[in-house]
Amino acid sequence: MEFSELLIKRRSIRNFQDREIPLSLIREIIRDSCLAPNAANRQPWRFIIVNKRDRVEKLARESKSNLLKDLENNPTSLLKNYETILRNESYNVFYNAPCLVYITGPKDVRSLDVDCALAASYLMLAATTRGLGTCWVAFGSRIKNPDILKEIGLPADHRIVAPIILGYPEEIPEPPKRNEPQILKIIQ
Amino acid sequence: MEFSELLIKRRSIRNFQDREIPLSLIREIIRDSCLAPNAANRQPWRFIIVNKRDRVEKLARESKSNLLKDLENNPTSLLKNYETILRNESYNVFYNAPCLVYITGPKDVRSLDVDCALAASYLMLAATTRGLGTCWVAFGSRIKNPDILKEIGLPADHRIVAPIILGYPEEIPEPPKRNEPQILKIIQ
Repeated sequence: MEFSELLIKRRSIRNFQDREIPLSLIREIIRDSCLAPNAANRQPWRFIIVNKRDRVEKLARESKSNLLKDLENNPTSLLKNYETILRNESYNVFYNAPCLVYITGPKDVRSLDVDCALAASYLMLAATTRGLGTCWVAFGSRIKNPDILKEIGLPADHRIVAPIILGYPEEIPEPPKRNEPQILKIIQ
Repeated sequence: MEFSELLIKRRSIRNFQDREIPLSLIREIIRDSCLAPNAANRQPWRFIIVNKRDRVEKLARESKSNLLKDLENNPTSLLKNYETILRNESYNVFYNAPCLVYITGPKDVRSLDVDCALAASYLMLAATTRGLGTCWVAFGSRIKNPDILKEIGLPADHRIVAPIILGYPEEIPEPPKRNEPQILKIIQ
C-alpha cells in the first residue's frame, strides 16, 4: 500500500467483524513495528498478544472496574468526563475486539513512553496495510489484579504503555477531521 | 512509496547534502504528520520550523552548552556516557542539518509525549517518501536562553518533545539491525 493511501486508511476502528486474526499475521505486524526509530537503539519494547475475544473482554472488565474505582476515590479526576460511558454496563473498553496487543517495557527506561509510541505508530500502520483496523485504547491499561497480571505475563518491573486492539473492520470511516497544522514560527 | 519499502528506507540520517529543502515540502510533511492518531483527537502538537543551516547550528550550540552545564552540575548523570562526544568541539548535536522541526505542545496535556511521538513517527515516514532523511535528536531540546526561546517562538507553557532534523541524505545506510521481537506471552 502506498503511504499516501495508508495515511487516509489508518483510522481508529471500534467496530469489528466476527473474524479471527491468524497469529502469524500478528507476528508479522509486530516484526514491522520493531523497525521504528527509538532512543539509542535500545528497542525497549516488549509485546503481549491476546488473540481470543473472551480473554480480551476479561481484560476490558478488569480495566473498567479499576477506572470506576479510581473515579470513586477521586471524583474530581479527569475521568469524570467519561463517567456516563464508564457506568454504561454494555460499554466494553476494548469494543469487543478479537485481538489485543499490549506494548510494554521496563519502567526504568526513561524514553519508554516515546519509544513504545513510535512502535505503536508503526504497528497501527503495518496492521492497516494488511487490512486490519486498530485503536490505541488508553483506558485498557489499568490491570491491577495480581492473578490477571500473572496470566498476561507482565513482569513487575514493566508497565503497559500502549494497549492496541486489532480486528477486521466492519467499515473504514471517512478520513479523520484534522485541524490545520499549527506552526508557531518559521525561521528561514 | 510502498509501506514495506518505507520501513527499510526510513533510517536515522546524520550526514546531509549541502542542499536546501523547499519550505512547501516541509509544510506538506507537517500536514501528513497531523494525520497521526492521538489521545481524544486533541491534536496538541505544534510545530516550529527552522529552515536555515546557521540558525539550526545556533540552536545546536545552545543545547550542547546546556548539556555540558548539566553534566558539570551532576557528574553522575546518564550524560556521563556521552561526555567524550559532548566535549568534542566539532560535535554538532544537529549534525549540520539544513533544517530542524521542533514538535512541541502545551505542558499540561498529559498525553503530550505520546501524541507528539506519534506525530513524529508520521513526520519521519512522510519525509522519507519525499526523499528526505531525518533524525530525532533528543539532545537538541535543551533550549534555555530566554532570547533564543523568544526567537524560536516557544510559548512559556509549551515544551519541546521532539527535535527532528531533516535534509537530503548523503546516503541511506543499510537497513537497521533489530533484535528479534520480544513477545512476553501469547494468549489464544
